[in-house]
Amino acid sequence: MNERLSRRRLSTATIARFHTYSRVLERLINDGRRTVSSVQLGQLSATSAALVRSDLFTLGFGGTRGVGYETGKLLERIVEVLGLERVREVVVVGAGRLGLAIASYLTQGARGLKITALFDIDPAKVGTEVAGVAIRSAERLAGEALTDVLAVVATPAAAAQPVVDQLVTAGVRSILNFAPTGLAVPSDVTVRSVDLAGELYVLSFLQDHHDGAA
Amino acid sequence: MNERLSRRRLSTATIARFHTYSRVLERLINDGRRTVSSVQLGQLSATSAALVRSDLFTLGFGGTRGVGYETGKLLERIVEVLGLERVREVVVVGAGRLGLAIASYLTQGARGLKITALFDIDPAKVGTEVAGVAIRSAERLAGEALTDVLAVVATPAAAAQPVVDQLVTAGVRSILNFAPTGLAVPSDVTVRSVDLAGELYVLSFLQDHHDGAA
Repeated sequence: MNERLSRRRLSTATIARFHTYSRVLERLINDGRRTVSSVQLGQLSATSAALVRSDLFTLGFGGTRGVGYETGKLLERIVEVLGLERVREVVVVGAGRLGLAIASYLTQGARGLKITALFDIDPAKVGTEVAGVAIRSAERLAGEALTDVLAVVATPAAAAQPVVDQLVTAGVRSILNFAPTGLAVPSDVTVRSVDLAGELYVLSFLQDHHDGAA
Repeated sequence: MNERLSRRRLSTATIARFHTYSRVLERLINDGRRTVSSVQLGQLSATSAALVRSDLFTLGFGGTRGVGYETGKLLERIVEVLGLERVREVVVVGAGRLGLAIASYLTQGARGLKITALFDIDPAKVGTEVAGVAIRSAERLAGEALTDVLAVVATPAAAAQPVVDQLVTAGVRSILNFAPTGLAVPSDVTVRSVDLAGELYVLSFLQDHHDGAA
């Protein structure tokens, strides 16, 4: 079953949904729930029951009409497929408010993710500790050994590209970028960007133009 | 020109790109740059020169071969189209680390966005102030007058749905959700979700499976 899945290419949207299911299942299991229907799982995951059934079928689960899916087994399988049973190291570059918030958010219970270092250029911050994680100098970033590590970029826009260049030199292949700017990377490096203000501007625009919409 | 645009429906992806252009243009103008080519604007915005040209044509800009676009006029036009010249009020529910970081990130220079209130259920936090913004009790959320306000939900997953129900009662029609859970809202309410840990899990999965990919 594993082999069949690993040969398939899962889309990022599918991976994101599996991840959402895993967190919903954790909550359900904490609440003592042993089974869940595709309708319930869909509602709690902001997706349709049909898509839940299709996703879980991909994982090898057929479900039983009127009974639903076993929460424990389902979670176990998703953890296995997503590789959540082993710990992935994460470094955060930029120990400003956003970087620190992301770091402490992730240290507080994101299963399988472990912040191992924060980097900043501010000498006043370097050497201090946040939530048990030391802040290191970003000047030596390119010399770090960061292969197999995920990097979060939470610097101002102007600093992001030089930081990313150094991360790539240090061996990073996966970057989550919060700086509001485009980034140039080699083709074997993956960048995903989150633009917080941009999300609000989109909402703002949609709210202005909603009434005129059909 | 305005009229033509307002009759068109811009996609959220287009709005997000316009917004990115506006921030790139602000930086270029600060650096004293009077013109920019579609190639440069594309690189700085993580998009293609062809898409830049198409987007700017939509705004009424043809560009001049070998000269490019005037940065000042272009920014002015985008600000007008996105409605960035007026201030949009934003409230943040959940004054934990993430909520506070988002609030101070947005108060530090997101043009046209103004945090007017933070809400939390913790009595120890209610009544205190963060970056000049008072933290108010989330218990009275449904009784607030929040029409035309954007709301950011930065609560734990289990609290998000009740909070959103109250926000909708208070008149909110646009919600940016950071709680890792699906949310049920009426059809006239827009929810956009940002899943920070989820983004990292997607990167992690892709990194694991990259080598096997063609």
